[in-house]
Amino acid sequence: MNCGQRIEKIQASLRRRKIDALLVSQPHNRRYLSGYTPADHDIGESSGVLLIPARKAPVLLTDFRFQIQAEREVEGMAVILYTKGLLPLLKTLLPELGVKTLGFESHYMLHSVFEKTKDVLAAMDIKLQPFSSLIEEMRLIKSEEEIDKLRHSVLLNEAVFAEVYRNIEPGQTEIDIALALESTMRRKGAESPSFETIVATGKRSALPHAVPGDVKIKKNKTLMIDMGLILDGYCSDMTRTFVPRKASKKFLKIHRLVRKAQLAATEAIRDGISAAAIDKIARSIIADAGYGKNFGHALGHGVGLAVHEGPGLSSRNRKHLKAGMIVTVEPGIYLPDWGGIRLENMVVVREEGCEVLNQNTTWLDC
Amino acid sequence: MNCGQRIEKIQASLRRRKIDALLVSQPHNRRYLSGYTPADHDIGESSGVLLIPARKAPVLLTDFRFQIQAEREVEGMAVILYTKGLLPLLKTLLPELGVKTLGFESHYMLHSVFEKTKDVLAAMDIKLQPFSSLIEEMRLIKSEEEIDKLRHSVLLNEAVFAEVYRNIEPGQTEIDIALALESTMRRKGAESPSFETIVATGKRSALPHAVPGDVKIKKNKTLMIDMGLILDGYCSDMTRTFVPRKASKKFLKIHRLVRKAQLAATEAIRDGISAAAIDKIARSIIADAGYGKNFGHALGHGVGLAVHEGPGLSSRNRKHLKAGMIVTVEPGIYLPDWGGIRLENMVVVREEGCEVLNQNTTWLDC
Repeated sequence: MNCGQRIEKIQASLRRRKIDALLVSQPHNRRYLSGYTPADHDIGESSGVLLIPARKAPVLLTDFRFQIQAEREVEGMAVILYTKGLLPLLKTLLPELGVKTLGFESHYMLHSVFEKTKDVLAAMDIKLQPFSSLIEEMRLIKSEEEIDKLRHSVLLNEAVFAEVYRNIEPGQTEIDIALALESTMRRKGAESPSFETIVATGKRSALPHAVPGDVKIKKNKTLMIDMGLILDGYCSDMTRTFVPRKASKKFLKIHRLVRKAQLAATEAIRDGISAAAIDKIARSIIADAGYGKNFGHALGHGVGLAVHEGPGLSSRNRKHLKAGMIVTVEPGIYLPDWGGIRLENMVVVREEGCEVLNQNTTWLDC
Repeated sequence: MNCGQRIEKIQASLRRRKIDALLVSQPHNRRYLSGYTPADHDIGESSGVLLIPARKAPVLLTDFRFQIQAEREVEGMAVILYTKGLLPLLKTLLPELGVKTLGFESHYMLHSVFEKTKDVLAAMDIKLQPFSSLIEEMRLIKSEEEIDKLRHSVLLNEAVFAEVYRNIEPGQTEIDIALALESTMRRKGAESPSFETIVATGKRSALPHAVPGDVKIKKNKTLMIDMGLILDGYCSDMTRTFVPRKASKKFLKIHRLVRKAQLAATEAIRDGISAAAIDKIARSIIADAGYGKNFGHALGHGVGLAVHEGPGLSSRNRKHLKAGMIVTVEPGIYLPDWGGIRLENMVVVREEGCEVLNQNTTWLDC
């Protein structure tokens, strides 16, 4: 499905719901529907929005800073610039397009922006209407073309890890390794890391979201690396936990347990099973071994244009997995005074099982 | 002013406005009031919120992943974990605290989150009330301690530039230089870049927000570098545009014009002058030379815990600058088929003028 076909699907939905046009501001949705690549600096500082009328051609609205890039990237779509902010442009554009009801992404519009926009449009007799997350739902199921892009992203991430792994030496700092990983990503063609690379050593690996520090790694201490990159828009996300030289018995025991939970959950993934059931498989194995309270996060999350998207593999998600979804499987055990072990792969849900996109090995397979 | 004093100021405001407690979710505000450092992965994926009762001690609410870091970083504040999301925790916590009216940051709460929270709280007879941007207003005026941190951030950024600048050679790519800058930042102690480093060569420098590419720099072509880092929480932001070897007459002419606009605007900055007036000084110089339409962005923006914050130096901001504000001064001229030149410094507004935090030189002073 290309951008044009995706837009048509949205337009059909708009017509069914009697919405005259939709504003798409969420950056991944914007890219999914138009090919326009910039991220937003933050939600208050947009790189542009798509305006999709139900019965006319969509347009990209942006400002001066992004004009050249927008015109180059969006195909078959006009680019209109706003100079005094989006709202003044909408005030002239919406009446021209005959819009009486404007859909917006409720999950990507700030309350303050909503209030202001609502008031301005109300004065023009235009109604703002939340549009449910149809675009996110479309993005849940990846086409084979998207799966290919995600596979390339995962394999490049693996290659970056392998290259840096070979050169890891006690005495380097967490920051040294994080920089080596991120430089190698970009040299090998990634757009950027998909999130801030985590490199945590020793007890620091018990912090699931550790920021790399000026801390030297040691030969017999845990090293946790959680890394991902963006290639052609699509994200990868992988965690490896190992010991540069000799692992302790305790490390080996917990590592085997985490790996066992990961393999069992992976084995069970297929079209039709609930996300909560998969989470439970891994969680039970860890809980039965007495570490239930040390696995405090969900088992996994979807990955695509966003590094964190649906579906969540958690006890709270009762929905069923469907073929074409891509999720991480990442059980972990964290002992505050000792350290943590997490292992993370990405898998594609298939009709009869799942396909692991990673080279499905750890340095310590068991 | 330390975190405790800042919190007291917020609490006094809450009591005046008859708000029983305030939820602070904006990451920089959260850090400003508590010392808790994590960023949010994105607005939909919070690292925690502060709950500040009007008459009781504030608490930090977060999840398992950030527990250890939170307990280490927040001083004199309890940390409470939520396991099923923030809302279920609030349902038990707010009645315990006797909260009937809960303030929230309208400019950092998604419309969808607002709608859901409002409904849940309404069933408990608790009202959600937008809280204006008092914390952002407090952050506009920096204390001397904050100015010192910003000065160190700027000077480290200058030192990183100087080190990499010495080694710039034709044949390197934009990505090579961006990686060298970002690695040097982190090796010298920065937490991270404050935004994605821009390195743009030749015509690509006409894109004000260019992403570094696999494009080789050439000895007689424009090279624009826009870079910043975060040191101890505080951001720097600086742009330099130069030519590795010999600049053309046209380059020199436009560079001098941009520099003239920058110097004139800087000269005029002082307590009491309007932001729009400063923007106009630079803009008139560029417009009088015939390049008005090629300077499409505002002259500058505030910098502090956020790399982009108030006050904006733009024609739309009629407010007056005050001593203790910190702004960038960054005029630019962009010619699509030729390239762009932007020069950016950071300055502190003082009673009788301003203090330039950068080494106030370019490779081409005039």
